[in-house]
Amino acid sequence: MHNLGISRRALLNLIGTSAGSAVMYDAMLTLGYAAQSDFAGPIRLSGDVKGTSVLVLGAGLAGMTAAYELRKAGYRVQILEYNDRPGGRNWSLYGGDEYTELGGATQKVQFAKGLYFNPGPWRIPHGHQGLLHYCKLLNVPLESFCQVNYEAYLHSARAFGGRPRRFREVSADFNGNVAELLAKATSQNRLDDTVTADEKDALLQALKEWGALDKNYQYRKSDQVSEVRGYDVPPGGGLASTPKDSDPIPFKQLVSSGLWSSIHSGQEIGHQSQIFQPIGGMGMIGKAFGASLKGLIRYGCKVTKIVQDSNGVKVTYTGRPGDVQEKIAVADWCVCTIPASILSQIPMAVGAPMRNAINSLSYEASIKVGLEFKRRFWEEDDHIYGGISYTDQPITNISYPSTDYLHNGGGVILGAYLYGDTPDSFEFAAMSAQDQVKEALAQGERIHPQYRKEFKSGVSVSWHRVPWTLGCAGHWTDENRKKNYGNLCAIDGRIVLAGEHCSRLPAWQEGAVLSALDTVQRLHERVVNSR
Amino acid sequence: MHNLGISRRALLNLIGTSAGSAVMYDAMLTLGYAAQSDFAGPIRLSGDVKGTSVLVLGAGLAGMTAAYELRKAGYRVQILEYNDRPGGRNWSLYGGDEYTELGGATQKVQFAKGLYFNPGPWRIPHGHQGLLHYCKLLNVPLESFCQVNYEAYLHSARAFGGRPRRFREVSADFNGNVAELLAKATSQNRLDDTVTADEKDALLQALKEWGALDKNYQYRKSDQVSEVRGYDVPPGGGLASTPKDSDPIPFKQLVSSGLWSSIHSGQEIGHQSQIFQPIGGMGMIGKAFGASLKGLIRYGCKVTKIVQDSNGVKVTYTGRPGDVQEKIAVADWCVCTIPASILSQIPMAVGAPMRNAINSLSYEASIKVGLEFKRRFWEEDDHIYGGISYTDQPITNISYPSTDYLHNGGGVILGAYLYGDTPDSFEFAAMSAQDQVKEALAQGERIHPQYRKEFKSGVSVSWHRVPWTLGCAGHWTDENRKKNYGNLCAIDGRIVLAGEHCSRLPAWQEGAVLSALDTVQRLHERVVNSR
Repeated sequence: MHNLGISRRALLNLIGTSAGSAVMYDAMLTLGYAAQSDFAGPIRLSGDVKGTSVLVLGAGLAGMTAAYELRKAGYRVQILEYNDRPGGRNWSLYGGDEYTELGGATQKVQFAKGLYFNPGPWRIPHGHQGLLHYCKLLNVPLESFCQVNYEAYLHSARAFGGRPRRFREVSADFNGNVAELLAKATSQNRLDDTVTADEKDALLQALKEWGALDKNYQYRKSDQVSEVRGYDVPPGGGLASTPKDSDPIPFKQLVSSGLWSSIHSGQEIGHQSQIFQPIGGMGMIGKAFGASLKGLIRYGCKVTKIVQDSNGVKVTYTGRPGDVQEKIAVADWCVCTIPASILSQIPMAVGAPMRNAINSLSYEASIKVGLEFKRRFWEEDDHIYGGISYTDQPITNISYPSTDYLHNGGGVILGAYLYGDTPDSFEFAAMSAQDQVKEALAQGERIHPQYRKEFKSGVSVSWHRVPWTLGCAGHWTDENRKKNYGNLCAIDGRIVLAGEHCSRLPAWQEGAVLSALDTVQRLHERVVNSR
Repeated sequence: MHNLGISRRALLNLIGTSAGSAVMYDAMLTLGYAAQSDFAGPIRLSGDVKGTSVLVLGAGLAGMTAAYELRKAGYRVQILEYNDRPGGRNWSLYGGDEYTELGGATQKVQFAKGLYFNPGPWRIPHGHQGLLHYCKLLNVPLESFCQVNYEAYLHSARAFGGRPRRFREVSADFNGNVAELLAKATSQNRLDDTVTADEKDALLQALKEWGALDKNYQYRKSDQVSEVRGYDVPPGGGLASTPKDSDPIPFKQLVSSGLWSSIHSGQEIGHQSQIFQPIGGMGMIGKAFGASLKGLIRYGCKVTKIVQDSNGVKVTYTGRPGDVQEKIAVADWCVCTIPASILSQIPMAVGAPMRNAINSLSYEASIKVGLEFKRRFWEEDDHIYGGISYTDQPITNISYPSTDYLHNGGGVILGAYLYGDTPDSFEFAAMSAQDQVKEALAQGERIHPQYRKEFKSGVSVSWHRVPWTLGCAGHWTDENRKKNYGNLCAIDGRIVLAGEHCSRLPAWQEGAVLSALDTVQRLHERVVNSR
């Protein structure tokens, strides 16, 4: 067998299996690898593959990652892509763009120059080192994406008379009340069966600092508390400067409000700071990738049949729409990144295990609405620069642009972000794009009364109506993953799949990239070993 | 009395006094004013002041804010400044810059082109609307400053054998343990005297979500927990993708480590996201302010005496150093922004109240060390993009640049940030700048072993040795503020003070700006009423 080298990952797995996790952690530190990434550095595909051809289906991030690495290793590569642009779900809409959904309804984007909206992915966690590697390689400049903004709003139609609260108020009051309650239980010896005497003092000190408690371990209206939840009138300068403390939300109201559900939004590893976005829109990655593969990608190709025999792969496709003449592409191997939601409808010569796996996978629904406003009122009036406000209305999110802070002129807000199958999402999903925009405005103005006056244009993308995915991302249940994931990823003859659906990071771009890297490594190994 | 209009602040104070805070909160919402800023929008100084002259002492942010607004109102304004540049403590050091501290020791900054270090202020909270107003007015472009980075390190020489932990590990484990303990106390009815039955269910649900607890309200090794504290091996793509969960830190170790002291760093209003920094260094604000006041500022002026009578103010100054010939500047009024630490040494014709107030104010010590490295190893090896690592060593902070993410080449780290009078700071303060750099390297390499190999150059600024401030910022005790703050800020004849020391936001640039605005409003009122 050709020596492909042992990856850092494989080494870590080996150490982890044989020596346990403490030793592995040391090994990870030694390898400079303790961070949250499964990307083990640029792959190296060595060995002579001259003359071997690979047909890649789909010019999304998975397809282009595969094509990039295979070309670099010496393969002859061509890509067939349904759309007239590279990127797939890596996609930004700009003024002048048109988008036609399933059924034929077309939206023409009206945004002013320089503004954009990401219907698909919109943030890159720092741990997504595979994707970041290609951003760097392709010279895609990045900027910070703001996930948590303490000045953003938390809103529930059922709490505080529908009046939004600031994130900082809810966050500070939640921490303060939790700290006070636990301090009480601890100091009054009610947890002596769990917290030992020597732990008690340290725990009380920790709760006091973290929860902004006073010397009696109570969370009470004070300068100290205003310094975390905000003042009614903050400290100023000169003689007109005396601050006024704010009143914490009473515990009962706080707990019953449900607003605490949104304060841990920044604590999941995919949402932990630092997070990035490409300057100018997420689609800049797809564009740069496409440019680097110039000449390899054939756009506007609708795959209609995939067959294979022991010598190679033959893919039938037509132009779209209207151009129904069948064309044929052949290659020694095929990397297929077409989403399973589409692939399940395409005749394909693979065995039952892969076919069943493809058919088993349902796709998430997701809807995103972009709203353009004439004025950045969220900055000018509300002092919210980037970040996300949360509401229990169907729109769930209002996300402010993490760019052009303090600029004059307008901006585009993510005015709704529905994800997954909820009753709310079904109702929203049934609306036309125009009605979705209207509904996003109606719900959003409960948080920002400026909406109506400042609204300029809107666009809505319902992923279940996107013709080339019919959904947002693969939805894996634990049970289905156990049964079908291995079969989905395994090489079937001369065909292998890749994409976020072939990863354990579904819906993330990193899943597409890591899947592609794993796929081309296995494919290359097969090729080299079969020569 | 001339009608100066009622400020939003005054209106809010009035409403707050007469109707209570709930009504005030509604009024604030109506006024679009519920955010954390004492800045009530651009000031308007109306009335005829033609011919009236004001001498401003100091071209820091307070002096330049005052000069900008007074000039706009029609005053004849001149500024005397000690340094050869505008900005004062708003200051960035670039390659080629020289800095000479008290005693004559000179450092020449060696940084590569494009790199900088802020010896003074380094972040602009989103609530600092006064400063942000002038950034916008002066076209100073801003970018996000990263305060909290979950991938950064928390380090104690006394915990975990001196091995740093990631912020995310400590943060998730602290929350998880606190949630589990409180859930236990609550569910076992040990807090029934405080938490009512209907609050109990909501609280338990909140703790479960927030603390990543399992269905038994326990914080245990699992995918769910790894999703907040990080994996040993994170999920990947294709077949080589199975994640390995990480082990939470045992409660006893976590509590005794003291590392929890740093996880609330982002929760104070001055540190809550969103935070900004000017692109290219904090000093860009001072530069832009200075350029906008071109012709008004006389540089290299050391004020030696300030006298006044009922007709005006006379200020004696010399050049520096060497040029000892006395020069005189006269004006109708004087806004003096010289730090009290310096002003207390200058003969000045003011009454005992202001004189005593000046003399009463001590100044904080602060030391900052900037370290240039050849390679951005904190990004490349550790995946830390911006943010702050904390240690219990004297250096306290290691702050990574919030700019040029993923660039090749070097960068400048804030390698030490000592603040206030601690035993650690005295020892550090006694060292030469060169030794401070060496010490920052020695302490920092316990967290980043790459320090020695990648080090290129360093610079250290001890604020107690900065000739024009002799300290970092005014240090107000509650007692001294009660006794002397009013006297410090009151107009004495034709002289009035301004600066961060004349504010309730000491050490913040916003304090300097708001103090200047309050000062010129009161001065203007006096001038208009005395005509």
